[in-house]
Amino acid sequence: MAKERFEKPTGTQDVLPGAVEKWLVVESKARDLCRRFNYREIRTPMFEHTGLFERGVGETTDIVEGEMYTFKDKGDRDLALRPEGTAGVVRAYVQNKLYGEPDVSKLYYIGPMFRYERPQAGRYRQFHQFGIEAFGAVDPAIDAEVVSMGYQFYKDLGLKDVKVELNSVGNAPSRAAYREKLLNFLRPMRDTLCSDCQRRMERNPLRVLDCKVDQDKFGGAPSILDSLDEECTTHFEQVKAHLDVMGVEYSINPRLVRGLDYYTHTAFEYKAAGIGSIDTVGGGGRYNGLVEEIGGPDQPGIGFGIGLERILLILENQGVELEAAKPLDVYFVALGEAADKEITKQLFTLRSLGYAAERDYLGRKMKAQMKSADRMNARYTAILGEDELNSGVIALKSMATGEQRTVKLEDLAASLN
Amino acid sequence: MAKERFEKPTGTQDVLPGAVEKWLVVESKARDLCRRFNYREIRTPMFEHTGLFERGVGETTDIVEGEMYTFKDKGDRDLALRPEGTAGVVRAYVQNKLYGEPDVSKLYYIGPMFRYERPQAGRYRQFHQFGIEAFGAVDPAIDAEVVSMGYQFYKDLGLKDVKVELNSVGNAPSRAAYREKLLNFLRPMRDTLCSDCQRRMERNPLRVLDCKVDQDKFGGAPSILDSLDEECTTHFEQVKAHLDVMGVEYSINPRLVRGLDYYTHTAFEYKAAGIGSIDTVGGGGRYNGLVEEIGGPDQPGIGFGIGLERILLILENQGVELEAAKPLDVYFVALGEAADKEITKQLFTLRSLGYAAERDYLGRKMKAQMKSADRMNARYTAILGEDELNSGVIALKSMATGEQRTVKLEDLAASLN
Repeated sequence: MAKERFEKPTGTQDVLPGAVEKWLVVESKARDLCRRFNYREIRTPMFEHTGLFERGVGETTDIVEGEMYTFKDKGDRDLALRPEGTAGVVRAYVQNKLYGEPDVSKLYYIGPMFRYERPQAGRYRQFHQFGIEAFGAVDPAIDAEVVSMGYQFYKDLGLKDVKVELNSVGNAPSRAAYREKLLNFLRPMRDTLCSDCQRRMERNPLRVLDCKVDQDKFGGAPSILDSLDEECTTHFEQVKAHLDVMGVEYSINPRLVRGLDYYTHTAFEYKAAGIGSIDTVGGGGRYNGLVEEIGGPDQPGIGFGIGLERILLILENQGVELEAAKPLDVYFVALGEAADKEITKQLFTLRSLGYAAERDYLGRKMKAQMKSADRMNARYTAILGEDELNSGVIALKSMATGEQRTVKLEDLAASLN
Repeated sequence: MAKERFEKPTGTQDVLPGAVEKWLVVESKARDLCRRFNYREIRTPMFEHTGLFERGVGETTDIVEGEMYTFKDKGDRDLALRPEGTAGVVRAYVQNKLYGEPDVSKLYYIGPMFRYERPQAGRYRQFHQFGIEAFGAVDPAIDAEVVSMGYQFYKDLGLKDVKVELNSVGNAPSRAAYREKLLNFLRPMRDTLCSDCQRRMERNPLRVLDCKVDQDKFGGAPSILDSLDEECTTHFEQVKAHLDVMGVEYSINPRLVRGLDYYTHTAFEYKAAGIGSIDTVGGGGRYNGLVEEIGGPDQPGIGFGIGLERILLILENQGVELEAAKPLDVYFVALGEAADKEITKQLFTLRSLGYAAERDYLGRKMKAQMKSADRMNARYTAILGEDELNSGVIALKSMATGEQRTVKLEDLAASLN
């Protein structure tokens, strides 16, 4: 009887050799970016108490309302796989009292996040984000630094035509003033709006402007920038001035209010040309109220999150080639039992010295082994028969030129350079 | 009213800056090891269908019986956070038909695993493993390669006194013969054994030898090596011969049968001196029946798994220093508004060129900024006042020697080398 076969859970993916190398390049560029900008990695658990996300992400958001993987552990705790990265990092910042350190806490994370969404191109139930968070500073220089860092990341990757969209959503009083003006604008058209918009009008009117369905009705909506008080306006002007001296190009988008509730002041998104349309590839903003909201001291914060699946998809669509895996240095071919043991020894020695080396494990004929060396993009093949072994030498063939020479076994490592 | 505070879930950990650098070194050494031995990374989802682990890990194991994080998704699927790495990799090997490729599939993984166990030193509910799996070859050379690779990994890390213990658990007929001999040995002492042992005698007598409680009663137990048939004995002799030519030291431990049901032929563990006692730091073996067991073709496999928390703990106990993070190249100090914008520009330029550069974001006085530069282990501080700015120069101070000189702003990058 045939055994039951298993499939990966719907909406998840296997990243296989051949594709994983691209992930490694993107992650390595993210880490190097963080080194240069002096952000240090933090790793928080894959799951947290569900209440953290209800509080930190917002109970009225799509994420918390319907997309979380929640479960009870065997101790009857309510847990959830993390649907985004910020809440866990803020929790760790508070729990580990990082706010007691003398410098600004500049942190980054890279890893899986989980949302139960309808699977579609570039969107997975387990997806991966690179994000940064900076806690403790209100200086507009750090807003500009955070915005510039994502911009630099896309440049480092070779992503073309990345646009920065920038806005300020102000402080609480500015937002309250704007909320009133916006509701005055929306109320007369209320009955013509979709049910999502009508619901959002009650709970969080700024998010109405996010609506994809009713977008073209909002042309005459008031701009939040007209509701900013002096403190907010000054902050925003300074952020722009810092971006200007760095040469980071951006455009102002007063509709950019983001889906989450805890943003204050600077809000931004990165857009890039994907398949025909312009896609959001990342974004972030300042969230001065969040640390206190989840039980910490009143400390400001700012950050961004960038989806790695989306980056890889757009890099592919733009035809950007990421560096390939390093080639194999040498593929060994052994002819006979004694040679077989000798190449085991040579392999182990070369690998200890840092070379990438391989052999056959399938008892294949020499011709098949040479094909295998080709497939693995080996720089050299090293062929050892009984005669060579008795003379303490090995035949070394360059796979690029086809040139073959005989070298002493003890000179093999040096001959590979 | 004070807001509710949140804590990380019991048994999980936050890896903070200062500790995360050690993780990065260990992971980077694992990846470099795999490059040299020609293993390529595979990434499978954090959760799988629960049935996969019941089948692939074994329904009678402690893991599946009581330690899995299981949950239903919103589509009513039975899912479980992965409790170990092999089952998911085998599932991906089968589902993605990697067995159709001409070469042996040599794969590795690094990542989180999840078991609901009682938390204790070095044991977490979210823990991390580095593992390799090689599918498609029965050549004893690859058994020896896999054993040697873990050995080399510990050497690369600087872990001292790592011992390799080696055994063969044979093929199915050899195991059946041994099972009978072992039961004949155990039956007379049955009533003196612990309840776990008595239960295991029924279901999987080989695992009785694992028992910590009754260990000293098994001195006279038959050795599985005496039950191996000719094929198994030859395979085992060849594995040892390959290890011998590599100079990998090992000892034979006929009691080493491992906790999982699917092992055949080669079984091994790595032991290292921890706090006083000798601890298992990793292990693995051949599992020729597993791929077919979970619905794939009859393809052999072999691999190991190494727990990273345990490695980090033992490295610490042995006093092994891993390389520290790279220092900051330069910390900028700005005096005045115009200088503030100029250092924003200089920072962005230097970071684009690959330098690690930092500034103050807290409006601190110069003395406090110099202390901050010290804490961040900066190689240089660069101080810009109004006079310097007007002359197009900057004061550059070496933090190692205290020496200070004035350089042109356009020569700053070159002066950092």
